[in-house]
Amino acid sequence: MRRVRYGVGMSLDAFIADPEGGTGWMSPDPGYDPSPFFASIDTLLMGRKTFELAGKNPYPGLRTYVFSNTLRPEDHPGVTVVSAGDAASTVASLRAEEGKDIWLSGGGELFRSLLAADLVDTVEVGIYPILAGQGVPLLPTFQMQARLELTKHEVYRSGLVVLIYAVRRDARPG
Amino acid sequence: MRRVRYGVGMSLDAFIADPEGGTGWMSPDPGYDPSPFFASIDTLLMGRKTFELAGKNPYPGLRTYVFSNTLRPEDHPGVTVVSAGDAASTVASLRAEEGKDIWLSGGGELFRSLLAADLVDTVEVGIYPILAGQGVPLLPTFQMQARLELTKHEVYRSGLVVLIYAVRRDARPG
Repeated sequence: MRRVRYGVGMSLDAFIADPEGGTGWMSPDPGYDPSPFFASIDTLLMGRKTFELAGKNPYPGLRTYVFSNTLRPEDHPGVTVVSAGDAASTVASLRAEEGKDIWLSGGGELFRSLLAADLVDTVEVGIYPILAGQGVPLLPTFQMQARLELTKHEVYRSGLVVLIYAVRRDARPG
Repeated sequence: MRRVRYGVGMSLDAFIADPEGGTGWMSPDPGYDPSPFFASIDTLLMGRKTFELAGKNPYPGLRTYVFSNTLRPEDHPGVTVVSAGDAASTVASLRAEEGKDIWLSGGGELFRSLLAADLVDTVEVGIYPILAGQGVPLLPTFQMQARLELTKHEVYRSGLVVLIYAVRRDARPG
């Protein structure tokens, strides 16, 4: 079973974007090398808002799934548009396929629905040294708690802190 | 000038308490020794809600200030009740006194008002390995961003991650 990994940058107050979806305050750290992460994945999951903000198809090398009830598949060649209501079944099928890991790049609403369906394996956050004050939350209001296990941490010179957690099975529904 | 230090535990999604103010999901890590922190402070600042949840006067060894427009000082011997509108001027005076550091233990609303007044020197969070889903935010909606400088990090066996940041002067108002 390959893993579904929610991988995002966020502020210390857990916003993954500003109210308009911008992420300009996430200054890249020159010491952070994203290539091992990208070498480990071959599939990308995005919600509709994240997709629109990302500029349509930002990672053409990845099999990309966009979950939306409003986008028309024929308008978006190069990605697979799936009804948001089918997110859990689609991701469950993808997860059971052979392949590399699956990157859930956001947003928080898609994360919430997949977390509730017990389909997220890791939460991997890069915490930028800023309080954003407002914006798009890492996880919108969620009626359950999800316990995590810290499996790795990295600290960079700019103050970027990368924390990698496994979602604990014993705390998940079903 | 002694420092005002906002020191709290939080979930990865940046909630410092559940919706009722409870913090039972913050399992103490046996390796974390709070005594150096307590040796470095002599004064405690709290908002009214934090004070009521803390069980009145939880740290009798500290000079404790509670900011509230509704509590009556005569009902709360042992602490100093100050009008919330006077928080900034009171804290500015305390900060200019001789003494050890000042612990701002919460909540988020008091933090926000003191941050806006350029009166918070550090943000010191213990991140517990959990997604709380909802609750009391580290920082309620704030119209400015505050840039931070990571000055220290500690990682404990339970997965508790302590991150200590200085609030950057160059990013503060005034």
